Formats: sequence, C-alpha cells, structure tokens
Amino acid sequence: MEPTATIMDSNAMNNSNNSSSHNFPHHQFLEVSSMEVHKVVPPPPRSTAHKLKNRLKETFFSDDPFHQFKGQSPKRKWILGAQYFFPILQWCPNYTFKFFKSDIVAGLTIASLAIPQGISYAKLANLPPIVGLYSSFVPPLIYAVLGSSRDLAVGPVSIASLILGSMLREKVSPAKEPLLFLQLAFTSTFFAGLFQASLGILRLGFIIDFLSKATLIGFMAGAAIIVSLQQLKALLGIVNFTKQMGVIAVLSSVFQHTDEWSWQTILMGFCFLVFLLLARHVSMKNPKLFWVSAGAPLLSVILSTLAVFVFKAQNHGVSIIGKLEQGLNPPSWNMLHFGGGHLGLVLKTGLVTGIISLTEGIAVGRTFAALKDYQVDGNKEMMAIGFMNIVGSCTSCYITTGAFSRSAVNHNAGAKTAMSNIVMSVTVMVTLLFLMPLFRYTPNVVLGAIIVTAVIGLIDIPAAYLIWKIDKFDFVVCVCAFLGVIFISVQDGLAIAVGISLFKILMQVTRPKTMVLGNIPGTDIYRNLHHYKDAKSVPGILILSIEAPINFANSTYLNERITRWIQEFETQDGVGKHSDLQHLVLDLSAVSSIDTSGVGLLRDLKNKLEKRDLELVLVNPVGEVMEKLQQANKADNFLSVDSLYLTVGEAVSSLSSKMKMPISSQV
Amino acid sequence: MEPTATIMDSNAMNNSNNSSSHNFPHHQFLEVSSMEVHKVVPPPPRSTAHKLKNRLKETFFSDDPFHQFKGQSPKRKWILGAQYFFPILQWCPNYTFKFFKSDIVAGLTIASLAIPQGISYAKLANLPPIVGLYSSFVPPLIYAVLGSSRDLAVGPVSIASLILGSMLREKVSPAKEPLLFLQLAFTSTFFAGLFQASLGILRLGFIIDFLSKATLIGFMAGAAIIVSLQQLKALLGIVNFTKQMGVIAVLSSVFQHTDEWSWQTILMGFCFLVFLLLARHVSMKNPKLFWVSAGAPLLSVILSTLAVFVFKAQNHGVSIIGKLEQGLNPPSWNMLHFGGGHLGLVLKTGLVTGIISLTEGIAVGRTFAALKDYQVDGNKEMMAIGFMNIVGSCTSCYITTGAFSRSAVNHNAGAKTAMSNIVMSVTVMVTLLFLMPLFRYTPNVVLGAIIVTAVIGLIDIPAAYLIWKIDKFDFVVCVCAFLGVIFISVQDGLAIAVGISLFKILMQVTRPKTMVLGNIPGTDIYRNLHHYKDAKSVPGILILSIEAPINFANSTYLNERITRWIQEFETQDGVGKHSDLQHLVLDLSAVSSIDTSGVGLLRDLKNKLEKRDLELVLVNPVGEVMEKLQQANKADNFLSVDSLYLTVGEAVSSLSSKMKMPISSQV
Repeated sequence: MEPTATIMDSNAMNNSNNSSSHNFPHHQFLEVSSMEVHKVVPPPPRSTAHKLKNRLKETFFSDDPFHQFKGQSPKRKWILGAQYFFPILQWCPNYTFKFFKSDIVAGLTIASLAIPQGISYAKLANLPPIVGLYSSFVPPLIYAVLGSSRDLAVGPVSIASLILGSMLREKVSPAKEPLLFLQLAFTSTFFAGLFQASLGILRLGFIIDFLSKATLIGFMAGAAIIVSLQQLKALLGIVNFTKQMGVIAVLSSVFQHTDEWSWQTILMGFCFLVFLLLARHVSMKNPKLFWVSAGAPLLSVILSTLAVFVFKAQNHGVSIIGKLEQGLNPPSWNMLHFGGGHLGLVLKTGLVTGIISLTEGIAVGRTFAALKDYQVDGNKEMMAIGFMNIVGSCTSCYITTGAFSRSAVNHNAGAKTAMSNIVMSVTVMVTLLFLMPLFRYTPNVVLGAIIVTAVIGLIDIPAAYLIWKIDKFDFVVCVCAFLGVIFISVQDGLAIAVGISLFKILMQVTRPKTMVLGNIPGTDIYRNLHHYKDAKSVPGILILSIEAPINFANSTYLNERITRWIQEFETQDGVGKHSDLQHLVLDLSAVSSIDTSGVGLLRDLKNKLEKRDLELVLVNPVGEVMEKLQQANKADNFLSVDSLYLTVGEAVSSLSSKMKMPISSQV
Repeated sequence: MEPTATIMDSNAMNNSNNSSSHNFPHHQFLEVSSMEVHKVVPPPPRSTAHKLKNRLKETFFSDDPFHQFKGQSPKRKWILGAQYFFPILQWCPNYTFKFFKSDIVAGLTIASLAIPQGISYAKLANLPPIVGLYSSFVPPLIYAVLGSSRDLAVGPVSIASLILGSMLREKVSPAKEPLLFLQLAFTSTFFAGLFQASLGILRLGFIIDFLSKATLIGFMAGAAIIVSLQQLKALLGIVNFTKQMGVIAVLSSVFQHTDEWSWQTILMGFCFLVFLLLARHVSMKNPKLFWVSAGAPLLSVILSTLAVFVFKAQNHGVSIIGKLEQGLNPPSWNMLHFGGGHLGLVLKTGLVTGIISLTEGIAVGRTFAALKDYQVDGNKEMMAIGFMNIVGSCTSCYITTGAFSRSAVNHNAGAKTAMSNIVMSVTVMVTLLFLMPLFRYTPNVVLGAIIVTAVIGLIDIPAAYLIWKIDKFDFVVCVCAFLGVIFISVQDGLAIAVGISLFKILMQVTRPKTMVLGNIPGTDIYRNLHHYKDAKSVPGILILSIEAPINFANSTYLNERITRWIQEFETQDGVGKHSDLQHLVLDLSAVSSIDTSGVGLLRDLKNKLEKRDLELVLVNPVGEVMEKLQQANKADNFLSVDSLYLTVGEAVSSLSSKMKMPISSQV
C-alpha cells in the first residue's frame, strides 16, 4: 500500500457542484464542500523501540513526574530531586509564623479528635487502646516529612481498623492469644506498607483506580453499618458478644443476650450519642463551627470519665478502659512475625488493608488538593504512606492513612502545611507521656458512641441516589458492594463489587457499539441515525461507525453485527431490493487501536463483501491502526489505495459519484 | 439542561464569512462552512427497561437468532424452530442423489483418515485404542443431526486428547488404574459437554473469543511439539518413558534410555514418517490431490501391519497394538464417576478440554462457512458439540470436536452436507463390527508417525511471522503461550497467554489514547497533530479527542493527562504565554459510554478550568453519554447550554469569534 491514496476522478463532480452546493443542495447526496478529497497518510514512521518507550511512558509515567527536571542545572536537579522525595524541603524554607499560627490551631483541633478516635479505632481492630495512640504519634511525623498533601490528617481510620481486626480474628483469637494477635497486626501493617510503597515505586498506582466511586460508596456504607453494629457491644454493655461480623449474627447475638444489657451503660451511651450527633449536625450546617464536632469527642471522654470516677460507675456494670501504660512507642521490629503458619494470613491482610487505606488516603489527598488547586502526585503519596506504615510497624503502630473526617476538620481549621500533623503528633506525645492515667476510668460506651458518630458520615445516601440517577449499572455495583459487605464479609463484598466492575469493562470491550450514520441535510456532517432523527441515510451506502478498539475479544462479534446491519439495511425498504446496497463505509475514527484479530476481521469482511459485489471503504483510521493496516497490506495487499478516505463526507461524495444507477430506477 | 442548545450569536460571523470562506480563507481559524451551528440533541427518550432489554439483546443475542421467525405464521414458526434445533431438517428435504454421491466420496475419505487417527489419538490420551474408534462412531451421527456446519468432520482431535490425557495423568496413573482412568475420562467428557452446551444455551459463546488467534497459534505450536515429543516413545521403541510432558523431562528421558532404542522400530518409523510427510507435501502443493495425504495413513497402517505380520516383527522389538475387542460402543453411563476425591479433577479437565475443543470446532466451522459463504451460529454449534459430547460420554466416547485436518480433507473431497459424517460413521461401524482383528498386528510406531504428521500442520510459522509484522504485543502473547506450553504445562501456557491478553485489554481501558487535534488548512477537518503534519493547531484553543469510554478505571488518568496536555500547550511557544489558552475543546465522538466516575471527571475538569479562567467545551457526545450528562446536569447544572457543539469545526469557529484578543497582541 502506498502512503498516498484516494485522489480519484471526483474532481469533475466537485467542480460541477462547486457553485451550487453551499446555497442549497441540488442533489442531497452528491453534496460536497468545495474542498478536494484529502489523503489518509500513515503517521510519521517511528521505530518499535520508540513506540515501546512511548507506550511505557504513557502507562507508568503518565503524569510526567520528571517534567520539572528538564533543562535544569545539575545542582538544581539535586535540589529538585531532594524536594521531590522530601516535600518538607519544599515548604519549610518559606514557612512563616503566620502559617505556624494557623497550623497550631489546626493541629490542636485534630489532636483533640485523634486521641479519642485513636483509642476507639484500636479497640475496633481488637488491639490494646494504647496502640491507637502510638499510631497517632509516629506516622504523622513521617508523613509530615514525606507527604505532599497539605491537608491530610494522618492516623488510624475506622475501615482499615475494622478489616484488620476482622481478617486476623478469623484465624487468631485476640482474647486467647493477645501477643500473637498484636504481632500479626504489626506484621500485616509492615506488609501493607511494603505493598503501598511498592505500588508507588513501581508506578502501579492505577491499581487503586479499579475501586470505583460506586464501589467505594456501597462498601463504605456497608462497613459503617458493620462497625456500628459492633459498637452495640459497648453501647448496650453486653459481655458475651458474637465474634462474627455479619448483620444477622450480630443482631441475633444482641437479642439473645438481653439479660446482659446494662441500663446504666445504655443511658450513658444514649446521652453521649445524642450529644455527639448534635455536635456533628451543628458543624455540618455551619462549617465555620467545625470546632463543635471536633471538640465534642474529647469533651465526651472527659465528661464521661469524670462521671464514672464520681459515681464509681465501674462498679455498676459500666465497663472502663482500665489502666494504660505510660510512655512513648516501644520498638516492635522484633515482633514482626514472618515465619510460621500465619504468613499467608498477614500477606492477605496486608494486601487488603493496604489497598483500602491507600484508596482512602489518596482520595482524601486529591479531594483537598482540588479544593486548594494544587497537585498531589498519586505515586509519590503511595510511597509516603507506604514508608510511614513500614516505620509504623517497627514502632508499635498499626495501619494508618489519611482520615477523611479528621482531614476535613484540619482543612476547616485552616491548616496550611503538614506542620499541623507535627503539632498533633507532639500533642499525642504529651498525652502518652503524662496524661495516660486520666483515661483509666474512661468508659468503653463513650468510645462506642464516638465510633458510631464517626462512621455514620460514611453512609452517603445522596451520592448513591445520584449514581442511581446517572448510571443504573454503577448503582448495581454500589448495592452489591453494600450487600456483600453486610451479609458476606467486608473483603468479599469488596471483591464482588470490583469483579462486577471489571466484568462491565470487559463486556464493553467484547460488545462494542456500532452506529449507523446518516447525513444531516444541508451539511457534510454524519451522525447516528437513531440519535439524530433529522439525519438521512444515503441510498446504496451503509455507513457504520465502530466505537471501540477492535481486538480478539470483539472481532467475532463485530463480524456478526456488521453482517446484521447489512441485512437490516437491505431489508429496510421491504424485501427484494437486495442490490441497492453497493458500498459499506466503516468509520474508524473511534477505533483507537487494532490487533491481528482486528486486521483479520477487516480482511474477512473485505472478502465476504466482495463475494456479494459490495465495496468496503475505510474512513479515518488513526495512526496506530493505519500503521498496522499498512503492515498487513504488505503481506497480501487486501486494501486498495482508493478504499481509504479522510472523512465520511468525502467517502460518500466520491462513492456516490461513481455509483451505478440503483436497480429500482433502471426498471 | 434543555434539549435545545448552542444557538448563539455566531450568525453574524457566519454571514460575514459566507461569501469568502469557501474560496480561500481570509482568516484561517474563523473559516466555517456556510452552515448554521447545529444542535447537539439528546437521543430520543427510552425507558430504563427498554435500554436494559436492548443491552441484553446486544450482549446475548447479537446475532439475532430469532430474526427469521419474525412475521411468520405459527405453523411456520414451529417448522423453523425445529429446523433451528435440528438443522438436518433443513437440508434433508432438499437432499439429492448428486449431493449423496459427493458425500459418499468425502465420507469414505475422511473415514480412511479417522480410523488410524482415532486409534492414535486415543493412545495420545492414554486410553485404549478402541475408544478412539468408538468416538468416531457415535458423535458424528449426533452432529449430523444437530450441527449446522456442512464441512465439519467430527471425531477425536490431537490437542484435546493430549490435554485430557495429561491432566488426568497428573493424578491417576493409566497404567496402574486403567478402569478409574477410563471412568475419569468419560466423566471429564460429560462435564466438557455439559459446559459446552451450557455456554451455547446461556449464549455465553463469546467466552471462547478470549482465546485470541495469537494465543492459539502459540498454543497449538507448543502443543504440537509436546505431542511430537511424546511420540518419541513409539518412534524409538522406548519402553520406560517419562510420565512428564515438559520438553526437558522428555528429552532427558529419551537420551537416558538409549539402550532401549530398537533399530527395527526406528527404521520402520523413519520410512513411514518420510512417506506420510511426502504425501502431506504433495497434497499441500496441489489441493486437488487431497486424497494422497488422506489415504496415506490408512495405507501406512495396512502396509505396516502386513510387514509386521509377514516378518513377525513383534518378536523383534516392534511393539504392536494387540488384540482389540470387536463390536459397537458399550454403554458407559454407569461409568460416570461424580463422587469421590476426583470431582475437582474431572471438572477442571472438562472445563479446559471443553473450551479448547469448542474453540477448535467453532473456528473450523467458521473457516469453512466463510469459504462457502454460509452462516454458522456459534451458540447453536456449541449446543450441538456439547450435546454430542454428553451423549458420547454415555456411549464410551471421549471428547470429540470438529477436527481441522479432517474437515479440510472433507471440504476438498467435495462434501456437501453433514451426510459425509454419517457415511464416515457407518464406515467406522463396519470396521468396529468386522475388521477389528486386522489391527492386531498394527505397530505402535506407525501410529506415532501418523500423529506427528497430523500435528506438524499445527505449527504455523508464517502466521506467527505475520503477527510479528503487524502487532508486536500479539507476538509476545503468542510466544508466551508457546513457551508456557513447552516449559510449564499445556493448561498453564494457555492460562498465561489469556492472562496477558486480558491485561492488554485492561491496560487499553486504563490508559486510553488522547489526541491533540489541529485544523487541516482550507477545510473544516480536524485531525491528530502528531499524525497529520500539515494540520495546524488553533491559537488559544486546545482541541483534545478522547479515544475510549470514560470510566472509573481511567478517569484519574485522563484528568492527569488532560492537565498535562494543557501544560504542554501553554509552554509550547516558550514560557510565560500562560493566558494564551482560553478554551479546551473535548471531542467526545469516540467516547462510546461514560459512567459516574467519567461524569465526575468532566465536572472536576470544568471546575478546575474555571479557576484558571478557561472554558470547557464538549463536542458531539454520543447518545448514551448525552443522556448521562443530562441526568448529572439536573443535579447541579454544571454544563451550560452553550458548551455543547456538534462538530469540532463549529466549536472552533464559534469560540474563535467570541475569543478575547490574545495577550500577546494586546501588548
């Protein structure tokens, strides 16, 4: 096939139409612009190595992270490189006292949230409460050095805590083997961090994109319900609670143990729950009052602890946290537990919690970056979060990430840089060093109320309704994730939703759309006949647009479907007008790539149509498709030079001019 | 959002350009056709149920199998229905003696191939040789009634035999537990048939499309080598042969047992191998001489049997088949073995052999249907092949399908209908009833030579070379399948190749192409700037075309990529010309669908661009995309009516006319 193509004897026709065609078409289907027929040219030649390099760059370095290094001096490159890996070097030199004032306020605010939530979430993960505080001390410091988000508030989060706790509890009992459980939690955290950092380093961050928003909304809502149900243990004061997570198991356990319900606990839980929910409501109505909901948990802890202490409620059925050790994080690298029969368990737990917490952290970072209009590099964030968890696992921390609710408070409180994380961390440090005895009488019921209030925001019914309005299939995915989490298990619900989403993508690839195009009268525009009702089909010419890459998974389908379009075209005006159809125009504008099966389809189609005395014409193959057609043509020359056009309009006008008279008008 | 849109104050501009624009553009970027600006309209409203029905129809009934039933009388519908399920009713009434003469010739020819191949392939599957003949008797009869291909010659095939034998042998030894092995083979065949028929009934036939041509070429070549290596046992006369299939294991086994090599066997094998290959070569050079290669195996069997009988070669180290039972297929439904510890094994074996044999059968059927220009309904064929195997498993047959080599002979011999299968079946029946004692002295070495000659045609180097020329990635898939089969195992090689193919599709979805469009001077045509070197970018307007459905898996990438395109556009003429860019035109013509994440991307992009004082304009959203944008717009009205255009040309001319003067010319 020669690169040049399709300059043919349509000039005569063009000239004859030249004067009249733009005022009003004297013949609708011969109407062409005064332009000559244009060539489809192959793209500029590129070597295979060059194409491979380009493809790899688009796949793994699509955000062009080295963009800023281009054309800089070596010294500047070193500085930029250091700033790339340690964003603190970027903002620290320009840090002002004004920023610091804002960050102090924000840091103290999120610390007042982080302390009660840290203790609560550690209990949710079946870990000692103090591990939650440890995890609010070291990881924020690491993130402040490595992270590029200015708003992320780092610490333990509800969903990752829930998953970690429930996955490990399936194999190891936290009550019977607390030390082993703790070791497995740290080891899982280590693997989660390793996995997160690897995703970032290998630039495979797009893997978390497979958790679609619809999946996450369903999943979060389901997880929120599971978490809330678990709190019924603390809220009702039940001692013998089920070890299972499912809705049915928990509810039946609750109502089997009505004798264990403690009215003192219930009363206290109810009061603080109402207080916390009211505070949340106030802050939601007026974001400037963010400090109401931010301060409420700590206030609740203080008030409830005082109440227990004063009324000696621990002797009246109200369970309390008990004695907590004072002091900073002890090292825990000697507790990482790689051997034994639990390697598979910690790997799996690390993988699932790693992905989930990464998804939350990145999404939160991106949300606030978009609000303040700065960029967050997903892959770099993964490295930061991953490294933070690896270090955390060696310093008695369990899995941490950027928490949505605390980051929102941080943002509303006016945080300017990651310094607010440092302030929070220092506050937690002071707590760990000096204030731990104060938590001794904190009742578990208030922790339950804090968790319920925190996770209730994860149920986003308006978002689910919007999904229902826009895309029914996405809604199905959302509901599957929700039901799967509630009735099967947290990780299975997630897996089901991801599976369905992937299945939908594969179905889109396997069953690509084809559209019949028609001419919009008085123009050169060709659009879908079933969409634009004023578009008219062209006699004798079937124009099909294929709306997907052609590959092995859909070439059989496309072959069948195109054959059916031809049949339908031939029978549309009644039976017997068989020979009216003379040309098939395939608009390949939307076919972004093609493989050998796709080329085979075009070849088969060409042969099949030739047997029926029909001509196949291709319109606007894009660069890659053009290259492959050329290569295939070298072998058996199946495409003639005059069967390629740049636009549908030019193809139609050229074909119309050389078309034989239709049978019907010959009679 | 109102359905009407984008009639704006561009009329004045149109009028002013009206006279001059088509002779030569006085201003390149204000050039528009004399047409008015056209409306993007939403597609005609359809209910969700209607859309769902349509989607399901396109997915599962894309070939419109009920097309012929439309508008027929009830009686005619019954007849058509019967003909649909039993295609024999279609061709039988019009069957002529002339057809019968052709079918007799073809049937006898393929029988002469089927008998030696049947015996050989059964040995390949580690089954008693007679099972191969049983499998050439019943299944062809069933297929003649149910199948719609006129050329398919049904019987055991090499690859499915190899896989069945090797998968079962991993768990059960055919030498030590021959009865159990036979039971498992029949049970696997039963499940394979059940699976095949289910795919057809549930209209999931597209699953076999995931075995791309590149995968199959690599897989077949690898399998051919594995099968040929297995024949070294027979060809060299080795007794203690390895049980493994891998290249290395087999070759080391061959050279460890050089003492067992038998020169009589090697001589005989070499002679017949040369004879068979020569016969194959003759038929390939001249397809009219098809009978040479078709008759050669039977002739080899006869000659070698005579030779053994005359020279009493069985006493000189030449191993022979031995006594075969006379008589037709015994029933075997009592041998189906569903319980015990082997259910997983037979299910897996049934699944893999079922898919592989289905792929071969359908591909062969389609190939010859295309040659003779008739249709083969894939899903119906699956039901036919599946039912044939279910019946087969109850009548002592193992897995069968349409064999490529025998079908080619059938076609070349002039078969007109499935009657040739009946003729072959009757011939095999006669053999089973009366001629079995004649095979007693047939040497195994000649069977090995027949297998090698048959499978050597599966190595298609020119096809692999063509794949290399057209698509490097497909070639990688092909090589992976080949190496996987040779060095790991038959089923793993296949799984690896399918995995890589799927990964490629997912990568295409995750990293869709975006192209910057430019105007081809003197026209309204906009094409890829990097492909069409004469295309010119439009000052102040960045035109991007997105070449894939937008969904959760790529919306993050697209957001990053579009941001990068904007950066590149802004810096292309040097630094500092920031405010030159005023509009971003997104051509959505190739975006065949969108989900909630995709809508979210457009919304985010709109907000982000507004912050930079850029305007986002969408061009030609197709029906489904338009519908979803409308739904999303109802919620928060993020798209204004004048940001939708029908063509890029109209968008550019309209935007150019209202564009502020570029900064550079203000100075």
